[in-house]
Amino acid sequence: MKALVYHGPGKMSLDDCPKPEITSATDAIVKVVKTTICGTDLHILKGDVATCGPGRILGHEGVGIIEQVGSAVSAFKPGDRVLISCISACGKCAYCRRQMFSHCTTGGWILGNSIDGTQAEYVRIPYADTSLYPIPAGADEEALVMLSDILPTGFECGVLNGKVQPGNTIAIIGSGPIGLAALLTAQFYSPAEIIMVDLDDNRLAIAKKFGATRTVNSTDGKAAEAVLKMTEGRGVDTAIEAVGMAATFELCQKIIAPGGTIANIGVHGTKVDLHLELLWDRNLTITTRLVDAVSTPMLLNVVQSKKLDPTLLITHHFKLIEMLKAYETFGHAADTKALKVIIDM
Amino acid sequence: MKALVYHGPGKMSLDDCPKPEITSATDAIVKVVKTTICGTDLHILKGDVATCGPGRILGHEGVGIIEQVGSAVSAFKPGDRVLISCISACGKCAYCRRQMFSHCTTGGWILGNSIDGTQAEYVRIPYADTSLYPIPAGADEEALVMLSDILPTGFECGVLNGKVQPGNTIAIIGSGPIGLAALLTAQFYSPAEIIMVDLDDNRLAIAKKFGATRTVNSTDGKAAEAVLKMTEGRGVDTAIEAVGMAATFELCQKIIAPGGTIANIGVHGTKVDLHLELLWDRNLTITTRLVDAVSTPMLLNVVQSKKLDPTLLITHHFKLIEMLKAYETFGHAADTKALKVIIDM
Amino acid sequence: MKALVYHGPGKMSLDDCPKPEITSATDAIVKVVKTTICGTDLHILKGDVATCGPGRILGHEGVGIIEQVGSAVSAFKPGDRVLISCISACGKCAYCRRQMFSHCTTGGWILGNSIDGTQAEYVRIPYADTSLYPIPAGADEEALVMLSDILPTGFECGVLNGKVQPGNTIAIIGSGPIGLAALLTAQFYSPAEIIMVDLDDNRLAIAKKFGATRTVNSTDGKAAEAVLKMTEGRGVDTAIEAVGMAATFELCQKIIAPGGTIANIGVHGTKVDLHLELLWDRNLTITTRLVDAVSTPMLLNVVQSKKLDPTLLITHHFKLIEMLKAYETFGHAADTKALKVIIDM
Amino acid sequence: MKALVYHGPGKMSLDDCPKPEITSATDAIVKVVKTTICGTDLHILKGDVATCGPGRILGHEGVGIIEQVGSAVSAFKPGDRVLISCISACGKCAYCRRQMFSHCTTGGWILGNSIDGTQAEYVRIPYADTSLYPIPAGADEEALVMLSDILPTGFECGVLNGKVQPGNTIAIIGSGPIGLAALLTAQFYSPAEIIMVDLDDNRLAIAKKFGATRTVNSTDGKAAEAVLKMTEGRGVDTAIEAVGMAATFELCQKIIAPGGTIANIGVHGTKVDLHLELLWDRNLTITTRLVDAVSTPMLLNVVQSKKLDPTLLITHHFKLIEMLKAYETFGHAADTKALKVIIDM
Repeated sequence: MKALVYHGPGKMSLDDCPKPEITSATDAIVKVVKTTICGTDLHILKGDVATCGPGRILGHEGVGIIEQVGSAVSAFKPGDRVLISCISACGKCAYCRRQMFSHCTTGGWILGNSIDGTQAEYVRIPYADTSLYPIPAGADEEALVMLSDILPTGFECGVLNGKVQPGNTIAIIGSGPIGLAALLTAQFYSPAEIIMVDLDDNRLAIAKKFGATRTVNSTDGKAAEAVLKMTEGRGVDTAIEAVGMAATFELCQKIIAPGGTIANIGVHGTKVDLHLELLWDRNLTITTRLVDAVSTPMLLNVVQSKKLDPTLLITHHFKLIEMLKAYETFGHAADTKALKVIIDM
Repeated sequence: MKALVYHGPGKMSLDDCPKPEITSATDAIVKVVKTTICGTDLHILKGDVATCGPGRILGHEGVGIIEQVGSAVSAFKPGDRVLISCISACGKCAYCRRQMFSHCTTGGWILGNSIDGTQAEYVRIPYADTSLYPIPAGADEEALVMLSDILPTGFECGVLNGKVQPGNTIAIIGSGPIGLAALLTAQFYSPAEIIMVDLDDNRLAIAKKFGATRTVNSTDGKAAEAVLKMTEGRGVDTAIEAVGMAATFELCQKIIAPGGTIANIGVHGTKVDLHLELLWDRNLTITTRLVDAVSTPMLLNVVQSKKLDPTLLITHHFKLIEMLKAYETFGHAADTKALKVIIDM
Repeated sequence: MKALVYHGPGKMSLDDCPKPEITSATDAIVKVVKTTICGTDLHILKGDVATCGPGRILGHEGVGIIEQVGSAVSAFKPGDRVLISCISACGKCAYCRRQMFSHCTTGGWILGNSIDGTQAEYVRIPYADTSLYPIPAGADEEALVMLSDILPTGFECGVLNGKVQPGNTIAIIGSGPIGLAALLTAQFYSPAEIIMVDLDDNRLAIAKKFGATRTVNSTDGKAAEAVLKMTEGRGVDTAIEAVGMAATFELCQKIIAPGGTIANIGVHGTKVDLHLELLWDRNLTITTRLVDAVSTPMLLNVVQSKKLDPTLLITHHFKLIEMLKAYETFGHAADTKALKVIIDM
Repeated sequence: MKALVYHGPGKMSLDDCPKPEITSATDAIVKVVKTTICGTDLHILKGDVATCGPGRILGHEGVGIIEQVGSAVSAFKPGDRVLISCISACGKCAYCRRQMFSHCTTGGWILGNSIDGTQAEYVRIPYADTSLYPIPAGADEEALVMLSDILPTGFECGVLNGKVQPGNTIAIIGSGPIGLAALLTAQFYSPAEIIMVDLDDNRLAIAKKFGATRTVNSTDGKAAEAVLKMTEGRGVDTAIEAVGMAATFELCQKIIAPGGTIANIGVHGTKVDLHLELLWDRNLTITTRLVDAVSTPMLLNVVQSKKLDPTLLITHHFKLIEMLKAYETFGHAADTKALKVIIDM
């Protein structure tokens, strides 16, 4: 089968690979119908993700059709249409029993990382019963690809951890796909103000269309002043960090109100400064999180009820055979204005 | 009246000062019966607290007797015995309405800081109705002095923010008065293991008597390894930082388990490193807090029910006239083995 | 001044009454600008509310202008435009300290009940600082009348107590003003389905316009079957009782899913059956609540941010001089299709 | 093998039955080492439990040794010592994903109910990976039998649902095994007062030894008055119903303070009166729950840390061959003073 294979830093190609096989009674083989590319895939390509070695098929998002199931799989059968979660959960370990599927002792984020992933015609999904979701009849499958990772990540790591509440004022730092996912799902809780911060006016314009009430272009280095002015000096109740750099985390610390929450989503490569000399008495909460995908069933409900349209995030379409072009487009988002790209098999 | 007055960095004396007077209808004048010294008073003496200038009477803890009340005070009358909270709360502002009394826009921690405090024969208490608590008949008043600040601080900033739960494993970094207050009140929630870390074997021995299940002397720089070994490499569910230094906050980051909480109580003078490059995907919560004293009524209940004996924290007694000696003793705790000192009028 | 006075069961008149005066330092006198009539006022007129005796000026809702303040009032001054809360809160008692203002030991729901109310040219408001809210410049004051009681009641007693969550399925029994207030504010949390149940097709049609996803006319006595069918037999996550009768509370028990919550808003005159023989193992939560009006500042934010339009609830306008006609209209809602009526001074 | 078999209302016998066999890949066969009898077993014998028909082996509690595992069981192997949970959980269904294992669509309370149970030499445990717990080396296995049902039930349905908090006043109605289990586990949260109510002075004396601060013998029908007097008329913050009768649920309603919680544990056979005419405005929460056994890992930690001694509940010991005598003793607890009985194989 065709698959996008990582060959070490900076190197990837669309290769012919053997079709995956059931290796455990809890596995399923899924024929991928649609997949996408994640910012994390770009991190892997830079060589930043130590757990992902050369030879790995990338991808941890997608929808597909069950091809085959192991003997212990009871919730799915061949022919079922399924949503693939980026998180594999055994459902049995101490972390899974606490719903912290991200830290499943034998699962977590392994797809397209420590095991082969979804940017391929077929993929083996471990713990199928607890890592796949049935697609409701009549659902828009393209929309559901956004539920594999980006929407639960924006929602769980940003919105839930950030304790977004009706009437509150929130800021989201970073208006890329993940910041926009937080923006879309933050509106489940009806905050009064959503201030979006980015360097790119195009992305801020999109944020406005997606429901941001105000935007700040931080190119001038004065974003903190701007946000404080917008809040009469009070700061925001929730600051969601959706970039992953020291400077953006610093900005969150400058604009957070006493009693507020900084919810980090960004993947950071270096340590950051935490200004406890200023913040020790500010009654703050700071959170980090790898998505647990515990909200996937809820998000399915919300999408089905038309309260959320995930297709807003989709800007480009490719065929699997165009996979390198898809990466090219997604990797140069400032030029291509790409948010999420869909790859059809 | 006699009062302990701060005269700038390194300087204080026991002076004759005018007796305080009612300046607002919501004030009360309290005749102080017992007071104590806080680690924060030592910070003031070093010149570290910008809001506290020369000429200030120090102290924000104590019990006393109502001498006089303003026309708007309805909950107290002259002769009532009262517990003085370190936090003054107007009860009306947006922060008070959220129970975040620490950030009351006209109150908060002002006693012995921006207004004169309790290390004196008399003290003016603003917002008396919402900043004083009636002392139950028959209560041990010396015990209640520990409820002005140290026990609510250990409990709210450490135990509540740290989400201590039955069966959990927690570590408290720092076995001084505030760490011990966290240790005593953590036991309200029956954690399975409480690991106490300090440089001083005497304090660790006290911690053992107060209920610590294990202790670690961190002098050798290997506390993280020791704590991880005690938890089979898993780390602790809650790490309470009760020191206020970069190194102790760093230790918390090394020993915290995925999904855990770092609750900072320490007063920090400099920024610290936050290792987001390691922690961004660990599902952590980090909290800071100035005590709101919202738990004072509950703590009064617990003390009255004999579930908590605050007098365990009291090691020395002085008269007001011996105030400088009391500071000397409290300020050299390593030698004097002082925890909290009681000053009787 | 003119005021609507209750003279015993079935009797009321628009009388000339003395203008109220400050009786406590924490009082304010408010010149009423707009008021309204509540379902509870009709209960009083039936003689159902023992705490409200003949001679009482009715009304516990409205907006106005501060005329005079007591010496202890610090948050307001004459000329300030204010929203009057139906709940008076001393801010000092044990219940107020827990934010349970409804049970304030010297306040709670007293306006137009045990003290004179707002259906008058002037009203005395006790505990002004903690029972009035400043009206933001440019706000629609007519909309804000809905924040005195009906919106916080629907929100706190129905939506918050009912733990409405994104993606959930909820049912609201009763599509009168209070049920509609719950419907409007439930949408703050983006439930996937809101099923509205009533006997009146007109009110159900209004509910549809206000955001209900489905409606059930319960005239045929088969509402439970209908709701269960709509949820594939599973039942609803939240059932909000907004009527106050045994039959409607019974319906809630029949349609609630395991793990669900029944939030009672209705004022009940008799005991009801609770089917513990069926429900003891269903992991249910049942709540009752008198509004605490703790959400008023949040609701002000949401209204100001245009996420909620309270004027949807307003169907009729009268002058104070037409007060009896206003009661007539409001009291015959089935015929007049009245929801809330505004009385302008 | 020998097993205690139910033969219809009032009838049971110790029979020779075939040894159970693996019927699903997720099953385990456990050689029972110790079991016990539950009040629910007595309900079955009265014919009150419709799901349990003649021919059923009773029992849903116990510890044992893994004899055999199905091909999909990964957490256990023959020879492992295990604690058997009364709740079987597939770990995959919508309820299990919400941790509401009691309502697992193919599990829940099925052992000794709709499938054969533990009062036998061997038992088949479905969903072994998520329904058994490894016994820590050196643990007191007799103590752990109390973790199969009674302690998680008292804790989850009574203490957790009842929101017991430090400093609060709680009442537990019923001082039988389940009420005492609530009493023991309520102390995890350090309430200031625990008032125990029962008709039997012997059981109240035991309650005192187990940590009750006050007791009320309700034989005179004046328990409500007594509890209100003990709380200066205020009522209790939490009332735990551990009997299952209309009169005891009524008592809870009479003694609950505004803002309080009534947590029902009792198995009710008839509907009860709910006095909404008095309680609609009291800000109450009422809960029902079948144990989810979600707290079992925590309880194991607490027992291992010596914060809880479950053996306090054990009064009698029998051999399997004496099973009928064990039922006789347990069924006449008023005479025999039995709490829990241990049956050794």
